Amino acid sequence: MGASAALKSRPSAEPDGAEAMLRVALSLFLEQGYHGASMRDIAQRAGVSVSAAYHYFPSKADMLRTIMVRVTEDLIADLEAARDGAGPDPAARLAAIVRAHVLLHTRRQDESFIGNSELRSLSLVDRRKVVALRDRVGQVFKDVVAEGCRRRVFSQPYAAETVRAILTMCTAVAGWYRANGPDRPETIAERYAELALRLVGAGRGEEGHTR
Amino acid sequence: MGASAALKSRPSAEPDGAEAMLRVALSLFLEQGYHGASMRDIAQRAGVSVSAAYHYFPSKADMLRTIMVRVTEDLIADLEAARDGAGPDPAARLAAIVRAHVLLHTRRQDESFIGNSELRSLSLVDRRKVVALRDRVGQVFKDVVAEGCRRRVFSQPYAAETVRAILTMCTAVAGWYRANGPDRPETIAERYAELALRLVGAGRGEEGHTR
Repeated sequence: MGASAALKSRPSAEPDGAEAMLRVALSLFLEQGYHGASMRDIAQRAGVSVSAAYHYFPSKADMLRTIMVRVTEDLIADLEAARDGAGPDPAARLAAIVRAHVLLHTRRQDESFIGNSELRSLSLVDRRKVVALRDRVGQVFKDVVAEGCRRRVFSQPYAAETVRAILTMCTAVAGWYRANGPDRPETIAERYAELALRLVGAGRGEEGHTR
Repeated sequence: MGASAALKSRPSAEPDGAEAMLRVALSLFLEQGYHGASMRDIAQRAGVSVSAAYHYFPSKADMLRTIMVRVTEDLIADLEAARDGAGPDPAARLAAIVRAHVLLHTRRQDESFIGNSELRSLSLVDRRKVVALRDRVGQVFKDVVAEGCRRRVFSQPYAAETVRAILTMCTAVAGWYRANGPDRPETIAERYAELALRLVGAGRGEEGHTR
């Protein structure tokens, strides 16, 4: 799993020791669960002294929060770029944000898995921060679907429920995608875009957005 | 969360002490993660001596496997009953198994969450056993969708991908459903049945299965 590449996929203000710790923390959280991994193990495997480790991150919880915040902020940036690059058509916008969402979840599977399985391990304050970021992810989808329904290019009486279904099916890609599987990420992303357009009832009765 | 009710929802061969341990184990795995909870804590909270605890379950891993196997076997039984009770129409069958899947995931949220987040914590042998059961869950959906495509009442070129999307969106209900939320489980189940019918392209061009 490409944890190291993924965590460094964007420029970061963290020094190298901190980055090394985040990479190790991610892989240990994945192997042993958040509660099973210790700061000492993380520091040792990252080649950092325990005192330096606590200098970078006052607690293991800071690492978990950093991992979750970073991947979610990157997802928001990807979604906004995809949406804005797709022009004004709601169907094109929905397809673009679904593609972007799926692509990030194939590239950064480990962080996505930890984000879902260890949210409960964050402090209440940190959890609220991550949940607020996720709400922004959801809002990007809600706005696009609402605009499509308002303009009657989508037909879906349960927009909120449908947005949740789209988000969860796209997020789940992180759980089953395998780099050595039969389909490329772009192919999966394209199919999910079509599935999402079906869910919102895009182009019902017309040709075009759906088969 | 209704762990205690859920675990006892079907007749069980386990003696009461073992059932009490399974209930406590489920709630501790949820709070602390599988690796964070100890046999000693589980025994203590269940009001069972440590030696009795090891008599019921030779290891913590046995409890985790028991929890996962039981909920998955119950899911398979629910799905088969729903399918067989729906008659031969593939759309009615798909709607019925989606409803059954969603209902179980609202009733047994904790076990579903643990089933997803702690699969990695099982031994290879146990994981294979649980994965084989999940494959049976998937097969129920695959067969219904394949039959609908074969009879051309469904229109979906990517049946396998679509089944996965349906399963993941339905499973995710366990993650967000709240008993004090606005919608009853039956309402959610009904909407998900409609979403699934859209995904497979049921009744495309006709009135009926979808709006």
